[in-house]
This record gives sequence, structure tokens and C-alpha cells, in this order.
Amino acid sequence: MFKKLHTIRVKPRQEIITEIGNYCHQNGITSGIIIGIIGSVEEAQLNFLMKLPGEYENVSYQGPLEMVCAQGSIALKNDETIIHIHAQLSGKDICRGGHLAEATVFSTAEVIIGELDYQLWRQTDTYTGLNELIY
Amino acid sequence: MFKKLHTIRVKPRQEIITEIGNYCHQNGITSGIIIGIIGSVEEAQLNFLMKLPGEYENVSYQGPLEMVCAQGSIALKNDETIIHIHAQLSGKDICRGGHLAEATVFSTAEVIIGELDYQLWRQTDTYTGLNELIY
Amino acid sequence: MFKKLHTIRVKPRQEIITEIGNYCHQNGITSGIIIGIIGSVEEAQLNFLMKLPGEYENVSYQGPLEMVCAQGSIALKNDETIIHIHAQLSGKDICRGGHLAEATVFSTAEVIIGELDYQLWRQTDTYTGLNELIY
Repeated sequence: MFKKLHTIRVKPRQEIITEIGNYCHQNGITSGIIIGIIGSVEEAQLNFLMKLPGEYENVSYQGPLEMVCAQGSIALKNDETIIHIHAQLSGKDICRGGHLAEATVFSTAEVIIGELDYQLWRQTDTYTGLNELIY
Repeated sequence: MFKKLHTIRVKPRQEIITEIGNYCHQNGITSGIIIGIIGSVEEAQLNFLMKLPGEYENVSYQGPLEMVCAQGSIALKNDETIIHIHAQLSGKDICRGGHLAEATVFSTAEVIIGELDYQLWRQTDTYTGLNELIY
Repeated sequence: MFKKLHTIRVKPRQEIITEIGNYCHQNGITSGIIIGIIGSVEEAQLNFLMKLPGEYENVSYQGPLEMVCAQGSIALKNDETIIHIHAQLSGKDICRGGHLAEATVFSTAEVIIGELDYQLWRQTDTYTGLNELIY
């Protein structure tokens, strides 16, 4: 179940994943759901999984672009906190989404985190070559 | 934390943001998370932030288009309730998302609101020129 | 309100809606919110609503494609459990979203379900020709 809901604003020129990581560190959050992120970005990088195990292609997008939505989770792999986010970006001429590698805020990013009262864990999966949820 | 979950259907030809506003007014909701909206629209307008402070470009889309997903929040700016939603639209030939300015339902819009037990507030930010979450 | 949160991983080559259905059956879930799904698919089919009542066009997409996000619900129509999901897919060259008809996992699908403590119901709506939420 959710233990606490956190409503955060990431500010212009800040990198979103870094700021979420800092917030989690400061607040002792090691397990949670990224319920949503909306805002706009001045630059972002998405990863697209091309082949298994683990071959990604990284593509950079220049903003301003809307961050339409995002979903993900906060989990531990051993004692490392892993924040896994997929995000949808769009302008009037382009629209792409994928694994969020990096995103710098243009105007704002409104992040909703649902902290969990149970621990999510990840481990390397030899078939996918990625850090997968243990389930 | 969530105080209550609300599951609403907005019906054909109704405008989604207006109906969410009416529902919030009738149920005394001034603080919440838009967890999701799925359905289809017969017409919608998205805003794309182009320059700071606050220069949007508004683009109209003729449906029928799927409303793939949406995220956002309900907050107060002084005593005004502000509903901020980003939505993703798609047909088989086009896909765009952004700040939802207006959307008229085609078949349905299934809206999930998580009412909060703490108040979200907005205020004008002089740098972005927009109503930003106070954080 | 949420009764329980479920965090599931659907594995490579499994079909996502089937696996969510199996999980719900095994865990007695008949009412809930699909808060999110992220991952990647090797094949997926989306439905696009074209005309009312109920005329969909079905389009197949070959992956690998990112599953950027998804939203939806679990409800009963009489004694039948109906899982209604809209999903956003994207690669570096294409991006589409819509009513998820079928999706086979490439690397993973991380599914977050918020089980509800009240029952959601659907019934056929003669105007839309679809199973709509009773509200």
C-alpha cells in the first residue's frame, strides 16, 4: 500500500531523474511508484531497446517539448536505489516516448511519487541483460 | 495521502475539463491528483509551450482520436481551483500530446481522481509566467 | 479507496492482458485501477474507434517498441471481468497509442494495479455500442 504521497516540483534547468534521486535520498525513500510527471523539457534523452540482451539506442531531443506523462518506480538493487522512468514527450511537430535517460526542465516538472510500505527489488536478468523487478 | 478515490465517466459531447471542474465543485474537492483519463475525443485543443515567460501555441485536433492517457492535478491559487492536465491523443495516422486546453468526448472519458488529504497550492511564477505548484 | 497495491512483472513472450487477467483471477481482483505499465513489446495491436456505435479499426505494430505508459481499469460486466487498457507505444521512428487489444512482452512489462475497495461495473451503452463504466 502507499505509505505516503509526495508532490514535487522540479525547477527550470534542473535534471529530473537527478532531482528525484536527491529527493528520495533526503527523504529515505527506497521503494515507490512514479504515478506521474507532467511539465516541459528543454532537452531530453530517450533510450529505445533494440536487441536483447540489453542493446539500447539513445536519442537526444531538443525542446521545448511538453512532458506529456511519465510512469515508473523506485526500487533497490542490493543497496543501490534504481529509478526507472518511461516518459512521453511531444511538440506540435514530433511525439516520441521511451526509457527516460535524462531530461532538463524548461518550465516545470510536477512529479507525483507514491511511496510504498513494501520494498521493491531489482536484479540483473541474464535473458534481458537489464535490471528487472523481482517478481 | 489519498483521502478518497473518485471514478468518473464523462459522456459524449461533454467537455472533459469543465466536467471535472463541475464534479470537483459539487464534491468539495480542491486538492487532488488526476491519476488517469482514457477514452476518445471528437475534438481537442493542446497547448505547446514555446517560449518563457508563458508563450503557448494552441493547436486543434479533429477526432475521432483516442485519449491514450492523461495526468495532472487539482490545486488552489488563492481561492480559485486550477485543474492542470496533460493528455496524449492518438489516431492511426497522428499522435500528439501536451497541455490539455479543451477536449470534447466522442464515446467516453474514464477519469480517475485521487483526492488528497493535504492542500496543493499554485502561484504565478515570474520566471515561467505560469501558475506553478508551490514547493 | 485502494484496498491493496499490486506490482507485477509480465515476462518475455507473455501476452500482457492475458497475464493481468490470470493474476486478477488468482488473486480475486474484480475491481481496480491500472495505475501504470512500462516496458517493451515485441508485437502489439491497438484499436482505434472510428465511428459510433462501436466501429474500431485494428492496427498491428511490430516491435521492439517501448511501452511508454498505460492506464485503465478492472471492472465487472455482470459476472465477467473486463480489463480496459489504453497504452502508448513508441520507437525512435514511430509513436502511436490507443485501446490495447493485445501486446506480447519483449523484455518486461511492469504493471501497477490499485485494487479498489468498491466495485466498478460496466454495461453495454446503446449509443456508443461499447461496455461503458456505470456512473
